[in-house]
Amino acid sequence: MSTAQSTPAAMQDRLDAACRAITPLDQTVLDAAWDHINQLTKPLGSLGKLEEIAARLAAIQGGASPIEAYPARFFTIAGDHGVVAEGINSTPQIVTRQQIHNFLNGGGGINALCTAAGAELFIVDAGVKGEEFAPHPMLIRARVAEGTANLAVEPAMTQEQCLAALTLGMDLAEDAVKAGCRTLGAGEMGIGNTTPSAALFCAFLGADPAEMTGPGAGVPPIGLEGKTRVIKKALATHAETIASGDPLAILAALGGLEIAAMAGVFLGGAAAKRAVIIDGFIATAAFAAARAFAPHVADYCFFAHRSGENGHTKALELLGQDPYLNFGFRLGEGTGAALFMPLLRSAASVYNTMGTFASAGVVL
Amino acid sequence: MSTAQSTPAAMQDRLDAACRAITPLDQTVLDAAWDHINQLTKPLGSLGKLEEIAARLAAIQGGASPIEAYPARFFTIAGDHGVVAEGINSTPQIVTRQQIHNFLNGGGGINALCTAAGAELFIVDAGVKGEEFAPHPMLIRARVAEGTANLAVEPAMTQEQCLAALTLGMDLAEDAVKAGCRTLGAGEMGIGNTTPSAALFCAFLGADPAEMTGPGAGVPPIGLEGKTRVIKKALATHAETIASGDPLAILAALGGLEIAAMAGVFLGGAAAKRAVIIDGFIATAAFAAARAFAPHVADYCFFAHRSGENGHTKALELLGQDPYLNFGFRLGEGTGAALFMPLLRSAASVYNTMGTFASAGVVL
Repeated sequence: MSTAQSTPAAMQDRLDAACRAITPLDQTVLDAAWDHINQLTKPLGSLGKLEEIAARLAAIQGGASPIEAYPARFFTIAGDHGVVAEGINSTPQIVTRQQIHNFLNGGGGINALCTAAGAELFIVDAGVKGEEFAPHPMLIRARVAEGTANLAVEPAMTQEQCLAALTLGMDLAEDAVKAGCRTLGAGEMGIGNTTPSAALFCAFLGADPAEMTGPGAGVPPIGLEGKTRVIKKALATHAETIASGDPLAILAALGGLEIAAMAGVFLGGAAAKRAVIIDGFIATAAFAAARAFAPHVADYCFFAHRSGENGHTKALELLGQDPYLNFGFRLGEGTGAALFMPLLRSAASVYNTMGTFASAGVVL
Repeated sequence: MSTAQSTPAAMQDRLDAACRAITPLDQTVLDAAWDHINQLTKPLGSLGKLEEIAARLAAIQGGASPIEAYPARFFTIAGDHGVVAEGINSTPQIVTRQQIHNFLNGGGGINALCTAAGAELFIVDAGVKGEEFAPHPMLIRARVAEGTANLAVEPAMTQEQCLAALTLGMDLAEDAVKAGCRTLGAGEMGIGNTTPSAALFCAFLGADPAEMTGPGAGVPPIGLEGKTRVIKKALATHAETIASGDPLAILAALGGLEIAAMAGVFLGGAAAKRAVIIDGFIATAAFAAARAFAPHVADYCFFAHRSGENGHTKALELLGQDPYLNFGFRLGEGTGAALFMPLLRSAASVYNTMGTFASAGVVL
C-alpha cells in the first residue's frame, strides 16, 4: 500500500490519470462479441441478460477469447461514521469492529458467499474507530483515520483524507490486477453508512432525501423521519459544496472512508479494464461518486442486485441501471456482489464453449 | 433403466408409491432451520430469498447439518411431437436430433451452464424421431416411442406410453439418488413442445389458451393466432379427458414423452427427499402435471427462473410460484435451472458456515 507515502498532489495526479484511462468500451469490439453470441446454437437472444453480460465482459477484456471471469477478488472495506452522533443508527458503532473479527474468523455472510463463489476475500480497515487490528492474512490495515466527522455539521473527511481513501481503493485494485484478477468486487461494513450513502445520492443525483431514507440494519432511535431530517441537515450544511459540483469536495463532505475507498476500487478496476461488480445501496453510492469523477466507469460495472433497502430502486433508476438479481438482500459487505459472481462464470462459459450453427451443423 | 421390463400395472404401482412418499415438509424441521438462520450474524431477514432457499433445503434434507446442494445431476430430456403437423413450429423437427448431437459434442447452452455450475449432465432420448443414437457416455437411450401423435386430433401418447415415460423419469431420479446426488435438475429439447405445454397449463390450471401462446423458438408459419387455434382444437378434442380430472389421462392426451419423463424426475426426486430445480415454460408444464399426481411435490421444487416465453408468468401465478431469476431466458434444455444451481450452493454455504451471534460475540 503506497498511500502513506503519497502527497495530496501525487494522489490527485494518480486519480486524474485513472479517470483519463476510463474510456468507453470499444463499439467495434462489442459488436464483434455480439456477432459471436448470435452465432451460438440457440434462438437469437434466448439467453437474455446472460448474453449482455457475456458481450460486455468480452468488450471489457478487449475482445480476448476465451473471456475470463476468474480469478476474482473481493474487498469488504470497513469504516466508522461520525454521523452516528445524530442517532441515525439502530446498531451500536462497536459492531463495525465486532463484525471485522467475525469476518476474519470466517463467520460473516461475505465469507460464506465468497467461498461459494470461489472468490478471494480481503477485509480492509479504511477507517474503523479504536485500536489498530492485529495483523491477519485476510486483513489489509490501511486506516486513513479513526472514522469520519459528523457530516451533518461539518465535512465527513478533509479532502486529503478523501483522496487518501480513494488512493487506497486504487491501490487495492492495482494489487489485484497485478495478482492476475479478472474481476473485482467491493462491499462494506460501517455502522451508520446508509446515511452518508443517502446524502451522496441526493448530492450527485438530485434524489429526494425522504425517498433515500430506509432502515438500514434497523429503524434508528430517531425514526425514519429523524434520519431524513439528518440527511437534509447535511445537505443544507454542505449546500455550497454540493452546488460547486466538485466530486472530491462533495465526496469528502458527505461520504465515508470505506465509501471513498470503494469508489477508488471501481475507478482503479475500470482504469485497468477489469470487470467490477457493484453490490447494494452503499456500493451504489460509491459508484455514484466514481461516476462523477469518470462517467464511463459504468461500462465496466455489473450491478449485481437490487437491495431491499428503501431508496436503492430510485437511485438505480436515476443512474439508469437495472441490476441482475432481486433477492431482497440488505446486508451489505459485498454479499449481493458475491452472489452474482458465479453468474459471471456462467456468462463466460456460454461465450467460450457453446458451438456455433456452422460448427454444430444445426439449422435453427 | 428398468422401464422396458415393467408392466403397466407395475409402473402404475410404482407411480402410486412415489406419490404417497411425497409428504409435506416437516414444519418442526423447517422451524428449526429458520431458528438457526435467525441466529446468524446479520440483521434478521437481510439475506432475503437466499434464506428461504436455505431453510427449505435444510427441511428437504431432514434437518441434516451441513446441508448440501451438491452433487447435482441434470437431465436434458428429448422428444419429438406429432403436433408439428399443424404447423406450430418455426424450426424443423430435425433440429431436436441435431441439438442432441450438439449436446453430446459439448456445444449446447446446457453444456456451458452445467459446466459453469459444476453439475453433471446427461442427455436422455425419451422419444426422438428417426434412427437410434449411437451409444455415448453422456447419453441415456431410453426412447419410449418415436415421438408423439398429433395431440390436436388424438391422444399424444397412449396411457401406457405416458406411464413408461413417467417411469423413465423416476428411474433417472432413482439412479441419481443412488449415485449420491443431492439436487436434480431437468430440462428438455423437443421442437414443438411449447404447444403441448400450453395445452397442459390450460387443462391442469384452467389457463386461457391465448395467454399461454408464445413464439417458443420463433413465430410459427401459422402465426400465434394459428398456434392458439391448435391449442384450442386440442382442448376440444380431449374435453372429456380433461373433464375427468385424471392426471395420467390428461398428460397422455396433451403432453409429450420428454414432458412426462421430466414429471417423473420431479416426482422421483421429491419422493426421495431431494431438491429439484424447475427450469422454464416446458418444465413448469411438467411440474403442473407432477403436481396433479402429488400436490406436495411443490415443497421440494425450486423454480429457477421466469422465462421470456409468453404465458410463463401467468402459469407461475396460477401455480402460486415466484421464481428466483428473471434473466429473460427462453432456450429450455434446463439452462435456467443450471443458471440457478450455483445460488443453491451459496444458500448452503450461508447456512453451513456463517457464525452465530453467540459464537461471534456480535451484539447486532
